[in-house]
This record gives sequence, structure tokens and C-alpha cells, in this order.
Amino acid sequence: MTAAELANHYRAYIVCLNAQAWPALGDFVHDDVVHNGRHLGLAGYRDMLIANFADIPDLRFNIGLLLSDPPRVACRLDFDCTPSAEFLGLPVNGRRVTFAENVFYEFRDGRIVQVWSVIDKTAIETQL
Amino acid sequence: MTAAELANHYRAYIVCLNAQAWPALGDFVHDDVVHNGRHLGLAGYRDMLIANFADIPDLRFNIGLLLSDPPRVACRLDFDCTPSAEFLGLPVNGRRVTFAENVFYEFRDGRIVQVWSVIDKTAIETQL
Repeated sequence: MTAAELANHYRAYIVCLNAQAWPALGDFVHDDVVHNGRHLGLAGYRDMLIANFADIPDLRFNIGLLLSDPPRVACRLDFDCTPSAEFLGLPVNGRRVTFAENVFYEFRDGRIVQVWSVIDKTAIETQL
Repeated sequence: MTAAELANHYRAYIVCLNAQAWPALGDFVHDDVVHNGRHLGLAGYRDMLIANFADIPDLRFNIGLLLSDPPRVACRLDFDCTPSAEFLGLPVNGRRVTFAENVFYEFRDGRIVQVWSVIDKTAIETQL
């Protein structure tokens, strides 16, 4: 895939997440995916996302910045949402918070095989 | 600059930081640089870096992942260092900690004009 094709493929992945279209997740995520050093596999990755939407009912992934340098993508995701209880160990408890996630992905065979994600916890703390 | 040229230019910026070669900083950082939404300007940016090295005497910037998609660069920086007192509001106090920073840069005229940085505070908390 060219850089432009990989960027478009990543955008389709974000559409898949926001639609919670879990049967399609395997089009974007590799069976052997590793997230922040943990080997989740496709099923574990899907379970993580399902749990995220359960914890944050109005969760929506918004692309802020997107870089494509095959086989890697980097994205700054912007969130504006309402975690219903604790989030990252913080007592958010139904308050609306805005924060970013700076995240890197490595693709293999057109699928995400590794994720390195950092969420801006400090930004959330300052809103509580 | 091509993607490869911009990546090499960024690597030279990291060499400049690790050498604390402040007179050369203007070769890489724009007079109007904005860092996490704050307009620091070149002088303010340099002061921030000088303060970082004062707070963390063994500070060293290590490139983990580097993506180049002109005019933007994304980097995962790996740190293994010893903040002498508080760091990000955490009582590190001379303990050695390892953590990552996922950071995006936008270049204008070959110089960094905007930075969006997130440091993995959670990783540090788990080491204290």
C-alpha cells in the first residue's frame, strides 16, 4: 500500500470502530495484534474495544492528525466524551472530558499488528 | 523536503537536543513555535528544554519509532532517566524511571512550528 492508501485504510478502520462493526474488525486488525506490549490477539483487541464503549457510552474516535509512513501510521485522536465511572484510574464518574490519544500502529499484510498508545491523562486530571 | 530528508532533519534535531547545543536550536525550531497549545517561541522552547535538563540531569532523547509524512513528523521517544525531584506532579525524587513520549511535529520552512506531545504518565506511576 502507498502512504495515501494506508491512510485511507486507517480512516476506514476508524469508521469501523465508530460503527462498532465488530465482524469487520478483522479486515483491519491482525490475529496476532500486540497493544502496548500485551499480546491481545484479534479477539482480545475486540473485547478491549467493546469494554471501552461499555465504559464510555458516547465514545467516538475523531482523527486530529494522521501521518502515514508505510508500514506505520501515527494518529492523534481527539475525544470528547463522558466516561460513566472511573477512567484510567481517575474518578470521572459521568463528567464530560476532552483529551487526546497519540498512537502509533504497525501494519502487516494490511492489518494492525502492533499498537503503541499514550492517552493524555494529565489533560483529564486538570478537568476534574 | 522529501519524507526521508525530513526524517534525517528530525534526527539532527535530536542530536542537537542531546548535545544541549542551544545556539543551533534555531536551525530546527521556528521563532513562532507552539507547544501543546502554548505559544513558547524559540526562546521559550529553549528555556523549557534547559529546564528539562536541569530537572533530569541524565536526560537523553532516544528515537523509538519515527514516521515522516511532510510537513509532519511523529516520533515515539524512549526515556530511561532519573528526575531528581517531582516530575509531571509525581514524586519521582531521584528514582530511575523508563517511559515513552508520543509526539507529533509540524514543520514550516524546515523548522518545527507546532508540537503535540503526550508523555506516558501512567507508566511512571506504576514504577513508583
